[in-house]
Amino acid sequence: MNIDMINAAAERLRGHARRTPLLSSPFLDELAGRRVLVKAECLQHTGSFKFRGGWSALSALPAEQRREGVIAFSSGNHAQGVAFAAREHGVPAVILMPADAPRLKIANTRALGAEVVHFDRATEDRDAIGARLAQERGLTLIKPFDEPQVIAGQGTTGLEIATQAADQGVREADVLVPCGGGGLTSGIALALEATAPGLRARPVEPEGFDDTARSLLSGRIERNPRTTGSICDAIITPSPGQITFPILSRLCGPGLVVTEDEARRAMAAAFTRLKIVLEPGGAVALAAALYHGDRIGGDAVIAVASGGNVDAELFCDALTRFGDGS
Amino acid sequence: MNIDMINAAAERLRGHARRTPLLSSPFLDELAGRRVLVKAECLQHTGSFKFRGGWSALSALPAEQRREGVIAFSSGNHAQGVAFAAREHGVPAVILMPADAPRLKIANTRALGAEVVHFDRATEDRDAIGARLAQERGLTLIKPFDEPQVIAGQGTTGLEIATQAADQGVREADVLVPCGGGGLTSGIALALEATAPGLRARPVEPEGFDDTARSLLSGRIERNPRTTGSICDAIITPSPGQITFPILSRLCGPGLVVTEDEARRAMAAAFTRLKIVLEPGGAVALAAALYHGDRIGGDAVIAVASGGNVDAELFCDALTRFGDGS
Repeated sequence: MNIDMINAAAERLRGHARRTPLLSSPFLDELAGRRVLVKAECLQHTGSFKFRGGWSALSALPAEQRREGVIAFSSGNHAQGVAFAAREHGVPAVILMPADAPRLKIANTRALGAEVVHFDRATEDRDAIGARLAQERGLTLIKPFDEPQVIAGQGTTGLEIATQAADQGVREADVLVPCGGGGLTSGIALALEATAPGLRARPVEPEGFDDTARSLLSGRIERNPRTTGSICDAIITPSPGQITFPILSRLCGPGLVVTEDEARRAMAAAFTRLKIVLEPGGAVALAAALYHGDRIGGDAVIAVASGGNVDAELFCDALTRFGDGS
Repeated sequence: MNIDMINAAAERLRGHARRTPLLSSPFLDELAGRRVLVKAECLQHTGSFKFRGGWSALSALPAEQRREGVIAFSSGNHAQGVAFAAREHGVPAVILMPADAPRLKIANTRALGAEVVHFDRATEDRDAIGARLAQERGLTLIKPFDEPQVIAGQGTTGLEIATQAADQGVREADVLVPCGGGGLTSGIALALEATAPGLRARPVEPEGFDDTARSLLSGRIERNPRTTGSICDAIITPSPGQITFPILSRLCGPGLVVTEDEARRAMAAAFTRLKIVLEPGGAVALAAALYHGDRIGGDAVIAVASGGNVDAELFCDALTRFGDGS
């Protein structure tokens, strides 16, 4: 896992992934007490950075293997990223989803051309079903984060941040990244190490699900006591990965933790000041930039806004409760 | 008024205005029955394309004149665009606003560093107050649309559309533009004439305020019977301008008209599928692309999403009523 893989992924993604903008607002600068630059990955295809990793992994497969198709386990952003990347490659995608996944997510994944296979969370073994399907049909499993080509794809976000921040005169700053299994954070950290040594990645997590922050403190992989019950569902995982954690541990600054209400406030701020739609998990880094400034150094901070797949009800609840996020 | 002025404005705007992305979604393509590309000018500084015209006009002034400051009449997007451009130039801006303008818009304009001067719509003459202030303080009036350097600034949107559409393989398409006084539409039309002759600008207006569509039909400047009472307030003007209309008349395809509910539906579609925030007036072109396909030709259509300055209540009302806009 190194910068060459990220550069190679960037080549494969060229003309396919969007180069999302690095946004800002004087109102957010004032609120944070320093310049705030927001990498709007919610504007990526399928509404989150996950398309980058999906495309990277698919495009790295030998053509014959790719032709047989891919399989992914996900009820969320990874499913849509892989499904869309597979569709654009013209190859089949099977997405294994719990039978009780939100209907809208199932419908969206199907509409992107994937075959959705359901399993019963309570009685069936997801991994066993996946392994059987993969073997029967010759499908390749695309893991959500602990997979080098997926990390390489997410890392292309970091290459863009390095260039875009320099264009805006920012060469020293913390780069706050919403962190689940650590695919995006570790990819960005590797990209910054090679191309912008003054920028330092730091994971951001919701309170109660801060496995990565605790792992960075203790120096070993720590687990969350639970993995459900958060509005930040997109970034909830049991623990950092076997591949991602050593990278995080070597390169990342201390983790930050925000409350669910801070994530909602950041969603409201992004609506009012940036005109972008963020889901709670995609808003945690912006929340840390805006409301935890005392834990951040320097004149500028960069926050990755990693996804925007949120339903209207949850979104409007945040707007109603938190005004313009100030 | 010609392409050289637009190219010169693009030079002056370089590094100051954002090059906003040209977004798309397979879900919108399916809904429209053709490819839909959306130029997301809601992501421009101050949340609308108006920053381009404000910056263009300010930066075109002789330095001595600019130093004295500028004045604008506006309760909306033009005020914020001019205020922010003046602040970035380090010169004073006076914005003349009706005393009953929304408090949030007044607060935002002030927070961008402008001096807000109020007048009473019922008893005071805005133009007379503006002329007096301009003379007393040596301020230069920046008109919202009927001003060559403003049109040139808005036209830079068209230069970007030409390049970005070609990058995505689109060289023949209608380019739908939300239209008030016609500054954005005429600027884009001039830019496309010179750089992408297969792209044709067409104004889009809300029902009941279709002065430009009627003017294009009759061949002379027609007026709206009223200029209040629309949720699309950002694009409501009495009539096309003396400078803009001849350009619109020479270059633009027939106007399109959408209902307020179609604008709301398009806001919901942009939320769900593109993760951007649109105000009603900024959503009319997307509404025409999605819901008036029978009046559009070709395999692809480009819609300008011109602004996103909408309050949470109006936005959430649209989401609640129109789901995902399909």
